[in-house]
Amino acid sequence: MESQREDVPANRTNEINRRDFVQRAAMTAAAFAVTPPLSFLPESSKADVLAQIPKQHDQTVKMLRDWIALPSIAAENRGYPQGAEYMASLARNAGFQHVELVPTAGKPGVFATLDAGAKTTLGIYFMYDVKQYDPAEWSSPPLEGRIIDRPGVGKVMVGRGATNQKGPETALLAALHAFKAAREKLPVNLVLVAEGEEEIGSPNFSQVIAKPEVAAALRKSIGVIIPMGNQDADGGVQINLGAKGIVELELVSTGEKWGRGPKRDVHSSLAAQIDSPAWHLVQALNTLVQADGHTPAVPGFFDKVRPISPALKKILEDAIAKRSEASAKKALGVSRWINDEDWHDSLVRLVSQPTINIQGLVGGYTGPGGKTILPHRAIAKIDMRLVPDMTAKETLGLLKAHLAKGGFGDIEVNMTGGYDPTETDPDSRLIKAQIATYREAGIEPLLWPRLAGSWPGVTFTGAPLKLPAGQFGLGHGAGAHAPDEYWLIDSANPKVAGMDGAVRSFVEFFYACA
Amino acid sequence: MESQREDVPANRTNEINRRDFVQRAAMTAAAFAVTPPLSFLPESSKADVLAQIPKQHDQTVKMLRDWIALPSIAAENRGYPQGAEYMASLARNAGFQHVELVPTAGKPGVFATLDAGAKTTLGIYFMYDVKQYDPAEWSSPPLEGRIIDRPGVGKVMVGRGATNQKGPETALLAALHAFKAAREKLPVNLVLVAEGEEEIGSPNFSQVIAKPEVAAALRKSIGVIIPMGNQDADGGVQINLGAKGIVELELVSTGEKWGRGPKRDVHSSLAAQIDSPAWHLVQALNTLVQADGHTPAVPGFFDKVRPISPALKKILEDAIAKRSEASAKKALGVSRWINDEDWHDSLVRLVSQPTINIQGLVGGYTGPGGKTILPHRAIAKIDMRLVPDMTAKETLGLLKAHLAKGGFGDIEVNMTGGYDPTETDPDSRLIKAQIATYREAGIEPLLWPRLAGSWPGVTFTGAPLKLPAGQFGLGHGAGAHAPDEYWLIDSANPKVAGMDGAVRSFVEFFYACA
Repeated sequence: MESQREDVPANRTNEINRRDFVQRAAMTAAAFAVTPPLSFLPESSKADVLAQIPKQHDQTVKMLRDWIALPSIAAENRGYPQGAEYMASLARNAGFQHVELVPTAGKPGVFATLDAGAKTTLGIYFMYDVKQYDPAEWSSPPLEGRIIDRPGVGKVMVGRGATNQKGPETALLAALHAFKAAREKLPVNLVLVAEGEEEIGSPNFSQVIAKPEVAAALRKSIGVIIPMGNQDADGGVQINLGAKGIVELELVSTGEKWGRGPKRDVHSSLAAQIDSPAWHLVQALNTLVQADGHTPAVPGFFDKVRPISPALKKILEDAIAKRSEASAKKALGVSRWINDEDWHDSLVRLVSQPTINIQGLVGGYTGPGGKTILPHRAIAKIDMRLVPDMTAKETLGLLKAHLAKGGFGDIEVNMTGGYDPTETDPDSRLIKAQIATYREAGIEPLLWPRLAGSWPGVTFTGAPLKLPAGQFGLGHGAGAHAPDEYWLIDSANPKVAGMDGAVRSFVEFFYACA
Repeated sequence: MESQREDVPANRTNEINRRDFVQRAAMTAAAFAVTPPLSFLPESSKADVLAQIPKQHDQTVKMLRDWIALPSIAAENRGYPQGAEYMASLARNAGFQHVELVPTAGKPGVFATLDAGAKTTLGIYFMYDVKQYDPAEWSSPPLEGRIIDRPGVGKVMVGRGATNQKGPETALLAALHAFKAAREKLPVNLVLVAEGEEEIGSPNFSQVIAKPEVAAALRKSIGVIIPMGNQDADGGVQINLGAKGIVELELVSTGEKWGRGPKRDVHSSLAAQIDSPAWHLVQALNTLVQADGHTPAVPGFFDKVRPISPALKKILEDAIAKRSEASAKKALGVSRWINDEDWHDSLVRLVSQPTINIQGLVGGYTGPGGKTILPHRAIAKIDMRLVPDMTAKETLGLLKAHLAKGGFGDIEVNMTGGYDPTETDPDSRLIKAQIATYREAGIEPLLWPRLAGSWPGVTFTGAPLKLPAGQFGLGHGAGAHAPDEYWLIDSANPKVAGMDGAVRSFVEFFYACA
């Protein structure tokens, strides 16, 4: 899942602060891992289910390890369709009665239903793909799922996909296994939709949802959750009421398309005679942000930006007061915010402003030292983050029109993925059930109006489904997209749930939804 | 040698046109490979020497192959001091009586003298290092020195350093072996200076020359040549009366040095809150060239540019008339010149204008697809080409001052190498001997006022030595700095010298100098 990591440094020096806010209530309460049985009804059957969780602990850990060993990486076209087939078997084993692969123009999705004869239906979104990785950067093999002791955190499983998203997804599946083992009926029916291209921007997921029987099944639900280890190192939990949208793209400048410059790399002395696609790219890039180095300068970029509503503004102000600037700066390796704004204003900006970011630059010679060439090709990897009511399609169009008008129409704009912003009503049953579950565990969740990161929730919150959607789950992990990604198995901190506590949170949530 | 490749595309699609001009005289004459013995004195002894060349052919080819097998690559700190020691042994075997390694702050140089008791002394410059390479891009192993048949060219040896510069250097050494085998005295004394850091811009070569006994030995010479296969695919030869200087550098933008932005990669959603070192670099780069995308915009950059003299202008105009635009465009994969200038004006620009070129861009995520990070670091690899009377030191200073003044003083300017422009008098004995040798071989050389590429000739032409210096040699190779670099062994074209013809050209040149 792309969304959850907005304050997670993407390298190994990242330590444990997945969230920089600290929910004081959480400091004095304990998470599921150590709380006594809760008071949701029906108590006795729920207790039976919860009692299964520690018994099946080893089996749950093995389920995660086995899944990590089988990566599906869309950017590398690796692990398909095996990843989808494995996802389907996991769903079947967990008790879904109907399970099917859903072909798309890209990688297959998975659609599954579990009819418990309940009045309430809950939608669940899974991603079965993971981010690419470089084993050389890891301290243990990325596919091994090695358990190591992480000082101050506890026993964690290290592996690609551990927290993003197989760990939390495994916890949800393990919750279903607990119901099976206890021979108890689920209090809710489930509709599962899974995709294998989340890490490349979910280019084909809408095709899964568009299938009539899938859409019909989801329509019956109170909303859709993506399982997530929502706890920071101190046990605090954030509930996001929406997320920014995203457009990921490459800008590719080549002599061939330009009709100027060389069609292949030539000697750099020829810069006196031949135009440079690399300078052309630099000049195009320079027009994308204002002189301040960050404000998007693409005409029309802000036209559709809807101001934050008074209700969300109130939620934002309440939350800002609870977030710690010092721990954020430390976690991120940052000493100043944009424009030297104070903490309050920088958080308002984080929530409310769309962005154009350079993810990467690559062109010509990139090795050690120099090489006297004039490259025929240079690429910028870009992401644009969108706020309501911007759309990915319109924003991409604005960018293309701007480039064309500025004399950069030859630069290829290759969108690799993206989706619109998403919003969920804080008064929806889905969010209320989340809040109730967290509070029952002794945690006062921090409501946050909009994640600056992105996830394809708009597939659910947008037309035609218009369902509530959001992340849910206790538990903790870190290092998504980075080396040594991990998921907490046995917690060293009683306020933070380990794997069993994460499993428990889903059992409790099912009851809360019902 | 960095200088010779100004019209050589740096990739494998480059075919045979190392020079895009065609010297008509060469079309009807034959190179040494097929000409009868020449008329320089003393005829009988020279004939004895020349007669040795075909006899030692296999030995000469083996000398090149063995040398290719031992690469020295300064950028990778590979093959030192072995490369210098090997260079010394090659000199000793060729008849140099005094040979010594000269330590520098970087890789060692080599100094050698051959006293033939002659009236005239000739200086020789060798580089024993080669450019880095990626074996995956080669069709035969880069260190094997495999002989392959290249259609239309002949039998060539493929290997890193084959033409740049071990092939031509081997030819010169083989000429000395021919004198030894014939038991003939050389008509000139020789002073050899070699370095192992040419490919990183000769950062320490001046230390070799500064040694009193080296400087004293060179001062006795009529000038210095670097051996080179000067023939294009049609047999034509160009004599360069100078070369542009160069500054190679990296511009490094980091959050750490900037004091803004992150100190490590963070999630790209934080672009709304945290400044971007990548945008900072783009904005700095954008100030380096004018809106036309090529004219340097660094204040003072053109202040020291001396207009081409009337004498050189005459030489330039004569040469332009003989160069083919069509073959240049084809060889380079180019359809238009800068500003849509005509061939004449674009060549005037090539010779007369200094440049700022982007060799490479590298920052953040550079792999396939995207990765949602805000990189803490981005780098541009730059080279600046200088014309007289610009100097590397002053130009670097101008660049730094410009960046500082524009608010980019935090961007590191890491110079990796470079040297001043070089000029040699067309009326010097060295150039006259070159012309005479080529004409004797039936080739009317094309005089060219200034190579747009660069070589550290200023070490010889500049203060304090102020000697003539330039490339010399028949023979042909291509692919310098590129995959499948080769040196011609047995020519398919009677107008182009193979290895034996190249060896012969050095024998003849020694007599011409005397």
